[in-house]
Amino acid sequence: MSDGQAMPSFALKVPEGDDRERNVCTRCGFVAYQNPKIVTGSVATTEDGRILLCKRAIEPGFGFWTLPAGYMELGESVEQSARREAREEAGADLELDRVLAVYSVPRISQVQIMFRAKLLNADSITPGPESQELMLASWEDIPWDELAFPTVVWALRQHREVEGRADFPPFSNPADGV
Amino acid sequence: MSDGQAMPSFALKVPEGDDRERNVCTRCGFVAYQNPKIVTGSVATTEDGRILLCKRAIEPGFGFWTLPAGYMELGESVEQSARREAREEAGADLELDRVLAVYSVPRISQVQIMFRAKLLNADSITPGPESQELMLASWEDIPWDELAFPTVVWALRQHREVEGRADFPPFSNPADGV
Ligand SMILES: [Zn+2]
Ligand SMILES: [Zn+2]
Repeated sequence: MSDGQAMPSFALKVPEGDDRERNVCTRCGFVAYQNPKIVTGSVATTEDGRILLCKRAIEPGFGFWTLPAGYMELGESVEQSARREAREEAGADLELDRVLAVYSVPRISQVQIMFRAKLLNADSITPGPESQELMLASWEDIPWDELAFPTVVWALRQHREVEGRADFPPFSNPADGV
Repeated sequence: MSDGQAMPSFALKVPEGDDRERNVCTRCGFVAYQNPKIVTGSVATTEDGRILLCKRAIEPGFGFWTLPAGYMELGESVEQSARREAREEAGADLELDRVLAVYSVPRISQVQIMFRAKLLNADSITPGPESQELMLASWEDIPWDELAFPTVVWALRQHREVEGRADFPPFSNPADGV
């Protein structure tokens, strides 16, 4: 049997020394601890306040607009991760300002750490493999009906709410959010 | 062969559609994506400014003092996770104030989200199974030489730095930190 045909087969069991059920592979005993995943992203603006948006070339949200953001990898800091995502998705160099928001999306086990950032190279951004197209959107031009995820809406609104301010605590999920 | 004897056997491979090497089990094909793990914790204070510390009853850091903190589980928000940890480790009810710090510890692939919090039940805290003992420490009483982790030192110092203030952005790793 080739490697490609091998498949794990998970069952719920409480591993030794643990206090709750986990997915344990009945074939090899691997305990698949499922931890919440960290997404880092940015609301990055030009000097005249336009916001970098990326049209997604992949699922989920194919064809919809999003902020540069993605899963944090091993061996990097949250700041490095946020800058890497902007580079990969938009060829964008960012200067991170501060944490704008920490969102929890328990349904899909995500924590999203969103930064407020300055876009340093507005003239030379270019879509990466995960983006079809880029936009530098003024507030009036944001395609609200074509945003990929609720957290993108939250981040854009909350970013606007504290425009020009430095004295705000990071936002969490809005009261009317998931 | 019993379940208990089954063991995964991992090799580095680039899974289909991915762009970097992952640990793939050669027995069952499971891709063990290793994501950074999220720790949530709190610097929780009494009305007179004493800080809740827990003496660890487990490794790592057995016998050393720490802030109530631990791994976020599936299906909870970062805020729920921070409150749960304080309840489990110290029987403590917390009111979370705001995000004090977001630390990255790439060496061990952790992101730690630390809250500033109020301890609501100072009179009825009690050590949980992961704590040997609890302390409500004034600044002068903090056992600096017996703190379990560098991030505990960072959080305590940074908490002190912004005492009484509401206008600060969340801290990151200190410049002299890991
Ligand atoms: Zn397996
Ligand atoms: Zn396996």
